[in-house]
Amino acid sequence: MFDQVSIIGCGLIGSSIFKGLKKAGSIKKIITYDKDKAVTEIIKKDKLSDEIFNNAGEAVKNSDLVIIATPISSFESVLNSIKNNLKAGSILTDTCSVKTGVGKILKKINLKNSICIPGHPVAGIENSGPKAGIPDLFKNRWTILTPNKNIDEKAIKKVSKFWESMGSKVKIMSDEDHDKILSFSSHLPHAIAYNIVQTSMSNEQETKEDIIRYSAGGLRDFTRIAASDPTMWRDIFIDNSTLIIKAIDKFIKNLDEFKKAILEKDSKKLLEIFEKSKDFRKSVIKAGQDTDKPDFGRK
Amino acid sequence: MFDQVSIIGCGLIGSSIFKGLKKAGSIKKIITYDKDKAVTEIIKKDKLSDEIFNNAGEAVKNSDLVIIATPISSFESVLNSIKNNLKAGSILTDTCSVKTGVGKILKKINLKNSICIPGHPVAGIENSGPKAGIPDLFKNRWTILTPNKNIDEKAIKKVSKFWESMGSKVKIMSDEDHDKILSFSSHLPHAIAYNIVQTSMSNEQETKEDIIRYSAGGLRDFTRIAASDPTMWRDIFIDNSTLIIKAIDKFIKNLDEFKKAILEKDSKKLLEIFEKSKDFRKSVIKAGQDTDKPDFGRK
Repeated sequence: MFDQVSIIGCGLIGSSIFKGLKKAGSIKKIITYDKDKAVTEIIKKDKLSDEIFNNAGEAVKNSDLVIIATPISSFESVLNSIKNNLKAGSILTDTCSVKTGVGKILKKINLKNSICIPGHPVAGIENSGPKAGIPDLFKNRWTILTPNKNIDEKAIKKVSKFWESMGSKVKIMSDEDHDKILSFSSHLPHAIAYNIVQTSMSNEQETKEDIIRYSAGGLRDFTRIAASDPTMWRDIFIDNSTLIIKAIDKFIKNLDEFKKAILEKDSKKLLEIFEKSKDFRKSVIKAGQDTDKPDFGRK
Repeated sequence: MFDQVSIIGCGLIGSSIFKGLKKAGSIKKIITYDKDKAVTEIIKKDKLSDEIFNNAGEAVKNSDLVIIATPISSFESVLNSIKNNLKAGSILTDTCSVKTGVGKILKKINLKNSICIPGHPVAGIENSGPKAGIPDLFKNRWTILTPNKNIDEKAIKKVSKFWESMGSKVKIMSDEDHDKILSFSSHLPHAIAYNIVQTSMSNEQETKEDIIRYSAGGLRDFTRIAASDPTMWRDIFIDNSTLIIKAIDKFIKNLDEFKKAILEKDSKKLLEIFEKSKDFRKSVIKAGQDTDKPDFGRK
């Protein structure tokens, strides 16, 4: 597949790719690099790289595949720091959660020696940082690739196989489609989770403590989603702001109708909404995104 | 504790109480009754009662504790159907998720022979019906009791021990406090989950299918919450409407501020919200309501 791979950015995603590739045994040499010294210390201590480099440019020099696994806000500066060192004929990919922004930066910088195939593994847990990495993070999860139309099919196949070697399923689509779908399946739910938590927190201290104590009734699951990496999510909300605001507005319209149904004690309308939600849930289970095994607290 | 207990309503909660008590071995005779013939068939087939009765009045006659485990909308009619058959000195409790409404009905009907100690086990899973019952549903979960101030302490202790025998923790509070706390910890999150699902469903078919396919990015967990029992939730939203609408309004105010922060690309404000959410999550884990073990899809 690839002889040498460089992973730039060693947080949850970067370290999980390292561990996933090592488990698969599919790559001869894997280099991880992070600009953060504390992270570099963990890379050394936990042996999360086959070779240690002092800067990103050096770390990518002989690699056939380079993966930028940093937050979106660092993508452009990382690209600038490595662009003159990329090996001729190498492939460049990334793991950012918003793809039109990445596409624009790639168009602006226009790498001459490398083939660009942006990507997004739709997988994550609430923990972040290099110590949170797990080899099976991508197993049975989707990775979406958003290459331009004129990109060589063979290169796309190689990157697909790369993700598949870690157990991921791969889907190719346009960056616009990606950002629209994710604005509903991921960005809106996270925006909502943060605001549910904010709303609970805005109560006086005693009530707040009681809300935490009895959070098993639903709130608990939202707090998990709202505990994801702050920097990553700040970047997503800023980078995909137009589509996310559209989704939020759609959501508020629905919520207003729902409020009206409660106010009017419209039993029929409420039951209709709940039954439809149950059906949607069945589709999610059918799509293999969750199990129908009941969840009653993961203790 | 109690020699004979009658459970009226044999859905998820009623059947879980039956199984929990049997596992604990704390009650000599347990009767379950349900007005639904299909449910009664399951009670017979799955042996979910020590004795079968044809009506609720007969089913409570000799019981020391009677638990109404029906949806809130059936509470009053059930109470009317049993009130003349309750044993002198017996205790009556329930499992309804809204407590001021239950309090009002009890005040109106004013049972003469029985002591009323309303209750709410804050435990649940997304499945419903008698087949969904599990003996450990209440284990490590809270049960909130909301007796009037003048109620005999000994009777309250007996009901507390009853729930504790199934592994539940017990808390006494006023019905007003209960409904306020639950409007944030449970009712608002459910309202939001339904509306997230509604918002995703309002897209055109192709986008909808893609949203389902990539729902692991956050949406998945909301669909689980939104798959809970429709009748129960219709009743909760109607019965606790005033407090739930207050909570929704508070939530919308927060969401509007959040939208503004996204529009203005206010990085500082966004990071502040996310960091605070992480802290809140830590409190939930500290309160024993969840684990910090990462969740990456329950397959």
